[in-house]
Amino acid sequence: MTALTSLRTYLTPDEMPTHWYNVVADLSHPPAPPLGRDGQPVSAAQMAAIFPLPILEQEMSGERWIPIPDEVRQIYALWRPAPLVRALRLEALLGTRAKIFYKYEGVSPAGSHKPNSAVPQAFYNKLAGTKKLTTETGAGQWGSSIAFAGQMFGLPVRVFMVKVSYEQKPFRRSMMQTWGAEVFSSPTVLTQSGRTALAADPDCQGSLGLAISEAVEEAVADKDTCYTLGSVLNHVLLHQTIVGLEAKTQFDKLGVYPDVVIGPCGGGSSFGGIAFPFLADKAAGDKRAANLRAVAVEPASCPTLTKGSYAYDFGDVAGFTPLMKMFTLGHDFMPPGIHAGGLRYHGASQLVSQLVHEGLVEAVAVQQLATFEAGVQFARAEGIIPAPESCHAIRVAIDEAKAADAAGEARVILFNLTGHGHFDMASYDRFFAGKLENFAYPAEAIAASLAHLPKVG
Amino acid sequence: MTALTSLRTYLTPDEMPTHWYNVVADLSHPPAPPLGRDGQPVSAAQMAAIFPLPILEQEMSGERWIPIPDEVRQIYALWRPAPLVRALRLEALLGTRAKIFYKYEGVSPAGSHKPNSAVPQAFYNKLAGTKKLTTETGAGQWGSSIAFAGQMFGLPVRVFMVKVSYEQKPFRRSMMQTWGAEVFSSPTVLTQSGRTALAADPDCQGSLGLAISEAVEEAVADKDTCYTLGSVLNHVLLHQTIVGLEAKTQFDKLGVYPDVVIGPCGGGSSFGGIAFPFLADKAAGDKRAANLRAVAVEPASCPTLTKGSYAYDFGDVAGFTPLMKMFTLGHDFMPPGIHAGGLRYHGASQLVSQLVHEGLVEAVAVQQLATFEAGVQFARAEGIIPAPESCHAIRVAIDEAKAADAAGEARVILFNLTGHGHFDMASYDRFFAGKLENFAYPAEAIAASLAHLPKVG
Repeated sequence: MTALTSLRTYLTPDEMPTHWYNVVADLSHPPAPPLGRDGQPVSAAQMAAIFPLPILEQEMSGERWIPIPDEVRQIYALWRPAPLVRALRLEALLGTRAKIFYKYEGVSPAGSHKPNSAVPQAFYNKLAGTKKLTTETGAGQWGSSIAFAGQMFGLPVRVFMVKVSYEQKPFRRSMMQTWGAEVFSSPTVLTQSGRTALAADPDCQGSLGLAISEAVEEAVADKDTCYTLGSVLNHVLLHQTIVGLEAKTQFDKLGVYPDVVIGPCGGGSSFGGIAFPFLADKAAGDKRAANLRAVAVEPASCPTLTKGSYAYDFGDVAGFTPLMKMFTLGHDFMPPGIHAGGLRYHGASQLVSQLVHEGLVEAVAVQQLATFEAGVQFARAEGIIPAPESCHAIRVAIDEAKAADAAGEARVILFNLTGHGHFDMASYDRFFAGKLENFAYPAEAIAASLAHLPKVG
Repeated sequence: MTALTSLRTYLTPDEMPTHWYNVVADLSHPPAPPLGRDGQPVSAAQMAAIFPLPILEQEMSGERWIPIPDEVRQIYALWRPAPLVRALRLEALLGTRAKIFYKYEGVSPAGSHKPNSAVPQAFYNKLAGTKKLTTETGAGQWGSSIAFAGQMFGLPVRVFMVKVSYEQKPFRRSMMQTWGAEVFSSPTVLTQSGRTALAADPDCQGSLGLAISEAVEEAVADKDTCYTLGSVLNHVLLHQTIVGLEAKTQFDKLGVYPDVVIGPCGGGSSFGGIAFPFLADKAAGDKRAANLRAVAVEPASCPTLTKGSYAYDFGDVAGFTPLMKMFTLGHDFMPPGIHAGGLRYHGASQLVSQLVHEGLVEAVAVQQLATFEAGVQFARAEGIIPAPESCHAIRVAIDEAKAADAAGEARVILFNLTGHGHFDMASYDRFFAGKLENFAYPAEAIAASLAHLPKVG
């Protein structure tokens, strides 16, 4: 019997990261501040209406390393470390010289990377005396993660789920209920936003923007209720760096260092989570990272980083949020109904945006069919059926391997396999039935929505 | 920062089991042979019409240790070792002195323990020159596992999926297609069995028995096609012992040994898989195992081991299979439509049956609502949402902890968490909606079907 090849690398408890990495400390200049409609920076006091103080401190922090509380590490330990996996069978299938690794975040209870931030958000809220959390959810990935996290700290969670998803996707709703959350079909009669929408149209199917309004309204109205968000904001990207930090230590154990780090990019938290810790090495002058490339992958139908403007814009359709300096397609851009629901966002995290703007991060847009083809190829080689969002990273990882072979280079590739696709089989079903389509670059729609960018200064 | 408690134990590649354990070697007498309708033992030549030689050798082997081929170990390595997890948060919730551990099989690509046997079955078929595999599937757990395994060895797989499931549960079907299997809604026009059923009723919704007939018919008709089965048979239980063998080594690393080992029991492979390796210690006179208890948990609605007869019976409704000596409710017993689909089987593996008959294994029947209550309690403590089958083991693990506390004992409890419930959220949905019910012990139905037991000898 020959020796068994080890495909997966774990970490012992004493090898686990003790701090998150804050990329703000290594930016060439501080992030542009969030602005109010009056063009003035938003004060912490204003944000404190919906976020607890420890979260606000992280949101505005310039510290490079921020300790992960023991209580959070204990909950992380339910599924972390996520394995770093060598995709040997995929490499063999491609016949590539490249070494392909993936960090598998689908091992979490919710099946994705989202609990990495949900858990600390619930913890800090509990610490600050918050009595209830609110959030919105579309397909339910974030909603189920914060439901899980709230349950871990005994904190009630109220989720406003877009009505059309609530009715069409009962499984994520059942998950949230299993973890004890209250789930409402938005619009509801619980909030003024909901009542107004229902008065105008009793059959209103809801929207993510409307669900956000309901969740924020509840948080503003009750001093003991806070709001949570699953991507985009600085503190969310901070928490997600656990992904890349673990991966770095896992690579150290293998004596390997990646040449290119790839993540899918919607709001930016899964990309930032895996890529920022490697950019830290680059900023610190680590020679291994001198030529490191970080690639953010977005859908061609919603090409924020590759076709958007770098400008101040609202984070939501209705303009409730502060203005943030980011790549945006315009806050009223409505992307086509692709199946990677987590990547249908008009903007991108201000941190990812600034790094793209400064040339430290590359952005690539890929078409829907090519991502599902890559996902099926991956599933047939490696077993795991990936979430449609993850398929975006797989597509580019395969393309990177082929490009390296063509260039005669031996490339080490790392990508973030953000989740399994067990809740997305209806999308695979449509793919096999030939019912999925690519979308032409929506140039006119983008031009129209960019024309509505708010005027600042 | 305090030291992190390690909740999960893994194994290094050189700690991984190299052999499966065959409990037949430790039985007090050899298993009763399978019989034909004529009451004569079935010959290997007869079975060779549908199974390849290496599988038949394992089915009939009396060897205690059977080597796991390198090729199988390499595929196992895609997700194995499965973690042994200390359920500290569940213990705290219960306030128990008991130590509760679970072996988490939901980490496989298919989300359950089924690939543990699907992979070697595909491998041995490939080795023997089989060109195509057939199987039947109801809810799709076995079908998806053999689809995955066939893809790993480049072996085409044809799955006959009961029509009503094919239409109501498209997600498992999409999984099988993702792994490249052909999936047909049974009855089909591809087989005589299917054509006969359709001629009698063009709207026939199919049944598991009919799907078995179609799969077996294709295997009999083509010498290059073989049939696969996901539970009940000796070789399937053999392969599943990887679960208990890993757990034993993981316990060794912790310096702990269980007092009671618990598995859900339908056909018997997940129970046998976790329990048999510990019974091996008992048979070998290991003092740690002197008082070890092994508990098989079945649904009260389908109480094979607790209310059935120990007798020769067919493995299927239609009487196609050989007669096997086992606990049975009668081959035409039709259990109520409970949500643990994997446990709705009228019989039980002859090996588990013999061990129950000889008093080496305990059997317990539990009601449906109590299993979901335990599953929700587990999810809220440990995060993972368990499959309904797994909830049966959780129910008894919790009851064992309470009983130990009541008796003033410090008990170490191990159970098989056979899979995650991400494909079973519709059942949780019905549970939360108050639509699930318990079933009274179906005494009259069982008496009626037991009256139809075949006469032997």
